[in-house]
Amino acid sequence: MIFLCDKTKLQDSISIGQKAITGKTTMPILEGIYIEATQNTVTLIGSDKDVSIETKMEADVLEAGKIVVDAKIFGEIIRKLPNSEVRIETLENNGIQITCEKSVFNLIYMNADEFPSLPNINENMILTVPQSLLKNMIKGTSFAIAQDETRPILQGILFEVKDSYLNLVALDGYRLALRSELVETTNAISAVIPGKTLNEVAKILDDNEDKVNITFTPNHILFNLGQTKVISRLLEGEFIKYNSLLPQEYKLLITVNKQELQNGIERASLMAKEGNSNLIKLDIEEDNMIITSNSQLGKVREEVSINLQGEQVQIAFNSKYLLDVLKNMDQDEVVMELTSSISPCVIKNKESSNCKYLVLPVRLVK
Amino acid sequence: MIFLCDKTKLQDSISIGQKAITGKTTMPILEGIYIEATQNTVTLIGSDKDVSIETKMEADVLEAGKIVVDAKIFGEIIRKLPNSEVRIETLENNGIQITCEKSVFNLIYMNADEFPSLPNINENMILTVPQSLLKNMIKGTSFAIAQDETRPILQGILFEVKDSYLNLVALDGYRLALRSELVETTNAISAVIPGKTLNEVAKILDDNEDKVNITFTPNHILFNLGQTKVISRLLEGEFIKYNSLLPQEYKLLITVNKQELQNGIERASLMAKEGNSNLIKLDIEEDNMIITSNSQLGKVREEVSINLQGEQVQIAFNSKYLLDVLKNMDQDEVVMELTSSISPCVIKNKESSNCKYLVLPVRLVK
Repeated sequence: MIFLCDKTKLQDSISIGQKAITGKTTMPILEGIYIEATQNTVTLIGSDKDVSIETKMEADVLEAGKIVVDAKIFGEIIRKLPNSEVRIETLENNGIQITCEKSVFNLIYMNADEFPSLPNINENMILTVPQSLLKNMIKGTSFAIAQDETRPILQGILFEVKDSYLNLVALDGYRLALRSELVETTNAISAVIPGKTLNEVAKILDDNEDKVNITFTPNHILFNLGQTKVISRLLEGEFIKYNSLLPQEYKLLITVNKQELQNGIERASLMAKEGNSNLIKLDIEEDNMIITSNSQLGKVREEVSINLQGEQVQIAFNSKYLLDVLKNMDQDEVVMELTSSISPCVIKNKESSNCKYLVLPVRLVK
Repeated sequence: MIFLCDKTKLQDSISIGQKAITGKTTMPILEGIYIEATQNTVTLIGSDKDVSIETKMEADVLEAGKIVVDAKIFGEIIRKLPNSEVRIETLENNGIQITCEKSVFNLIYMNADEFPSLPNINENMILTVPQSLLKNMIKGTSFAIAQDETRPILQGILFEVKDSYLNLVALDGYRLALRSELVETTNAISAVIPGKTLNEVAKILDDNEDKVNITFTPNHILFNLGQTKVISRLLEGEFIKYNSLLPQEYKLLITVNKQELQNGIERASLMAKEGNSNLIKLDIEEDNMIITSNSQLGKVREEVSINLQGEQVQIAFNSKYLLDVLKNMDQDEVVMELTSSISPCVIKNKESSNCKYLVLPVRLVK
């Protein structure tokens, strides 16, 4: 194998492939990055047991071939090279030589045949969305996936296509995050994708209107970004029927400036952090929300202007759960729907229905 | 105690005082920041056993007084407040109330009388230097202080005023760093200051021509920056006679572009890192320096153009020691003075004599 390519392009491609290489595998080959040179194209693949990322780049291929090299050291070497043309050539004795200007590196390589092959997926794409939109939907839900491993299905994000909407849903025992966007498809799909995989996918997605094509198979999901494909296995099992968790009605409706509420809760949580309880109390009054918290260190009282429809109520939360939600919302005004001090709170954007967050309150001992 | 002040000013002052609060003390009072309000001025002091930092700010003092509050939580609270006027007031029962717009915090405070008083220093300043100059001198030497605690004096930086020069010197068993600048004084001083203290001082110094006045006493050094004073104890004992360590002559003189050399060594050290030996070998030839390194992962060869006066030589180094030096030099061309593969290497700027670095080679087993 011999090819020449631009250093920066190679560095970018490695960085994409590396996102699948978690280093948590017991198979040494999966610590490597697969490199295959064919006519004018170099393909790089990084993989762990859940996800594979394949990316293609232009190169001047003088001799076709394929190898696997340790991704970490290879990535570090390429990154440190001058911004110039890089030549990569296999030698005898399982060695490759990397040459760039006056730098020459020799590395051992692994047998490319030992690298697990990608699942063979017939790309009958059923969904196309802008990359930035998908990126926001993933970031807006992935914080809510379950951290403990007792219910593996909850470590995933539900990808649901229904009634021309794409819904992403994540939940643990304490909160639920739902993002919805209108899409141009009449298909119906329901699949659960490992949350960690999706976070890596989000990092590769651009903040622009470029499209990502999505294909589902019974066991896999494929994101096709053009030069780059991400293939993830699906989680087995049934996701929780999230619709039944969302309250159908409410008694109080609070409209509030998102940033003011977030700032108030952030300050209050400085006191709530002590002892890791994160407990803050909200007194919902006519025109104000009073946020209070106490700890050994002292106490805090914050006042946030609100518009209230309904009766006054007192309710307590883990401040972290409210902050996770507010940090992931991007409109100026949010609404909170409440029923009582022991029923879930729903938080939505005031002006659009693209998200719905549910947070359970903490029951106060009277 | 009651005072009103600008949030940003208070935040900046806390951040200066906090630089002395290491959290490594066993005295709870030293986890606090001392706050004293007198006529139109609030003084903040942070302290550990080695260093105290006192800073003053303007404030609208309605009632004089002094307290000590936990520096970490107080700093976090002030930082999170809106950019507005802050009111701080002591209450009964050892409480203070911090008010800013619609935020109210209550904290307990500690007895200010328990806070250790600053050493009483008569400011007979003997040296004035621009802040940016001192900052550079500290950064350019502090990396070379000894990390192990077997010889405490080597954990300090020598501050030497002699023959109208200010010299800062740090050394461990493997390298020496010397920075020299002409100063306007005829005094002579030699004092050793804890390296960690000086690093904190460097963070407070501005990158400008504002002056810092320096006063020495038998046990302390005082840096007066105007609104802020830093007082550090001196280390006891005699510093090593560093002049006897610097070679008086050399046989080889290498002139090289600093950045090219640094880049080459950085790349070579990617291979040298494996096994933590950091060993790189330099082959000094007529017009080139060949840098090589080997490890289990593979090998590397770098070539850097040089100008050589003298015989060719082969010499090996711990790459980290060379990189520490080069990263702290800021001129385009550097010179390296060598005598043999087992004698120390001296590195200097080509165009100025403001620094001198010495690095011991690694003896290669033939």
